[in-house]
This record gives sequence, structure tokens and C-alpha cells, in this order.
Amino acid sequence: MALPPVAVLGGTGQHGRGLACRLARAGYPVVVGSRDPLRAVRVVDEWREPCPIATASILEAVQRAAVVVLAIPFDAVDPTLRSVSPCFAHEALVVDVTVPLTFVGGVAGLARVAEGSAAEHVKARVPAHVRVAATFKTVPARLLHAADSPLDCDEFVCGDSSSARTDASALITAVSGLRAVDVGPLSRAQAIEHLTLLAVAINRRHHVHDARFRIVGL
Amino acid sequence: MALPPVAVLGGTGQHGRGLACRLARAGYPVVVGSRDPLRAVRVVDEWREPCPIATASILEAVQRAAVVVLAIPFDAVDPTLRSVSPCFAHEALVVDVTVPLTFVGGVAGLARVAEGSAAEHVKARVPAHVRVAATFKTVPARLLHAADSPLDCDEFVCGDSSSARTDASALITAVSGLRAVDVGPLSRAQAIEHLTLLAVAINRRHHVHDARFRIVGL
Repeated sequence: MALPPVAVLGGTGQHGRGLACRLARAGYPVVVGSRDPLRAVRVVDEWREPCPIATASILEAVQRAAVVVLAIPFDAVDPTLRSVSPCFAHEALVVDVTVPLTFVGGVAGLARVAEGSAAEHVKARVPAHVRVAATFKTVPARLLHAADSPLDCDEFVCGDSSSARTDASALITAVSGLRAVDVGPLSRAQAIEHLTLLAVAINRRHHVHDARFRIVGL
Repeated sequence: MALPPVAVLGGTGQHGRGLACRLARAGYPVVVGSRDPLRAVRVVDEWREPCPIATASILEAVQRAAVVVLAIPFDAVDPTLRSVSPCFAHEALVVDVTVPLTFVGGVAGLARVAEGSAAEHVKARVPAHVRVAATFKTVPARLLHAADSPLDCDEFVCGDSSSARTDASALITAVSGLRAVDVGPLSRAQAIEHLTLLAVAINRRHHVHDARFRIVGL
């Protein structure tokens, strides 16, 4: 069965690039959507990936995709979704990887989000026919980006339907070294975003770079 | 150096019993404080622990202790702290292990706590000279209670001072199979409590009993 086309929005950042490259290597047709398509062409050319990665404007990327990965900063979610909302394919899957991290006086925290989590914030801003899953929030962007580094950890996924969780889990499992751990409804995204905060806190406090999670007993 | 005396409040529950037994085996002088000291004597006798574990009323247990482990249900925190507040030794360490779990329609969640977390709720209810650390929130109570089971996981600790975190970390490290991971100030307790929620969700969804966490890359 052909793998569904994936659009990575924010694909020129570390997190988005890592996901774009790793999913392309796994055989997914990947298009990087950017506000500045010419810059995206230059950036993607520099990666010298063995697999083809297309580039497009954000609108075109979303129109072509069955899966849309939101790898943009949390602050960019609202304007981005406002502009692309009419373009989603029917039953498209939005994979939200954003985390509303804040650094106040050098101390990492999570911004309060009225909906409870970044993922529920996204859910409230896409059409009802679009499915939403939250994942790729805890695997370190730096490791994803260093495409030959072993990941060797678990990645948590939650979503508003079992099909959203299943399709997002397939993306996780396609990335070598990741195990998908389904934790249930989208309301669990807040807990996943707290894991990211803990990983950031552990990195800073213990002078490491790639703290990540493995579930024991599963 | 002699290990500090530890009072476990709620020591007749699964979580409290596991902690009392494992800390006694590690050489800590342990007293189980109970609202019903006669029942506590009967319960502790049944454990047939190789190490002595004393019993006392909650007030006596707190008066004697340098470390007070709150292994009571979250709902019991307010009345318990109201009654014992005047009895804490100077610079006593309160180790909060409570998690405000809720089950609404069979779905696990966390109760909203005005202070942000159970641990900060505790902090707001003890005298200023008492130190507070949050830990032992994610190691499964069932495994702690099965005293010969290997734990083989990380336990997260946060606290309001470096001495609180250090002293709480010593308790963690004394328990065979646990590694202490210091995640910083007490405000991180909310993230730790979300980890507990995720572990509960993983247990239910994947039909396992003892999901727990290990940090990779540390």
C-alpha cells in the first residue's frame, strides 16, 4: 500500500527537518511547506538527502497532503492555521508536534493554553473533518536532526480518534529507533507536553542534550 | 552517619507500606503513623518484615521524624496537615507522594489544584521552617509493595531547596533499583504528576500493571 503524502510545515527548523528527512527515508512522499518557498528550495538542497523531498508554499503543501505535520513554533500556529484551514483534504490528519515552552528568568515552563494543551488548541482551529493527533513532542529535535543518531526511545501519541492515533503511530514506527506508545484521547496532550518540559529541565540541570523517555514494563 | 528517622503517614496503604518496608530494609529507622495506632500494630505485624518498623499515632510519628512521607490519599492531605502542622521538627522534610488522580466515566485525569500541583498544595499548608520535596509519585505502588520485585526505573524529585532535593534523592537512591533524577524547583511537581497520569493511562490501555519511566541519554 502506498504511503500517504506528508506535508511538513516549518520543515526548515531543526525539528521539522529531522522529521522530514526521517520520514522521507522511511518511504513517505514528503513536501516541506514554507512561507518562503525559494528559501525552502535552497535549504532542502543543502541537506543532500538521499531521498527526494519536495518543497512548496504552505498552501500547496497542505492541499497535496494526507498528513500535515505542524513543526512550527507554537506562536505561529494561529496565523498558519487561519491561512491553511480551507485547504485541508477531507479527513486529513494534522500531527501537532508543538510545545508552548516558555523561559522566564532562564527557568523553563509551559505557557497556559486555554484549551489545556497545544494540541487541543490546534484541534479548536481546524475544520471538523480534520483529525488531530499529538506526537513527536518528546523526541529531542537535535537527535531527529542528526539523522544518523540512534533514537532508542519511546514516543507518545494521543488523538481524537483511534484512526488518528493509528495513522500517527505508523509515522512513529516508520522512524527507526522509535516505539509508539498510545496514551489515549487528545486530552492527554497536556501530559505529553509536560514530559517535554521535564526533558528540557533534565537537559539543563544535568548538562546533557538529549534526555528522552523509555517506558519500562511495557 | 546515622540515617534520619522517617515517619510514613498512610503506611498501611499499598504505596505507604512499600515505602516503609523498602526504607526500613535500607537501614532507615521507620515509624508508621496511623489514625488508628492499634490497627497499624496489627497490619505491620502481618508484614513479617525482617527489619523493625515502629508504629505510632500520626502526631507522635511526626514529632519523632526528620522526614515525613505523606503516603495518604490526596483528599486526606488537608485534615492531616491541619492536625500535625504544629508538631513538625525544625527543618523537617515533608516528602509528598500524593497524586490528585480522578476517574470520571472510567477516564483517568488529574484534579485541578489551585496551587498547580499536589506538592505545592502541601507546601502551602506546612510551616515555613518545613522543607517540601515531591517524589515517589511515579514508581508503581504495586511494585513497591511487592518488596522483592526489581524496580529498575527512574524516580523524579523536585523541591523548594537544594537540601530538600538532596535529602529526598538519598531516600530514592537507598531503594534498590531506583535512580534519582533531580528536575528542579517544586513547580515541576505538576509535570511529575502528569507522568503518573500517563503511567496509569498506559497501564489501562495496554493491559499492563507497572508502566514506569526511564530517562535515556542521562
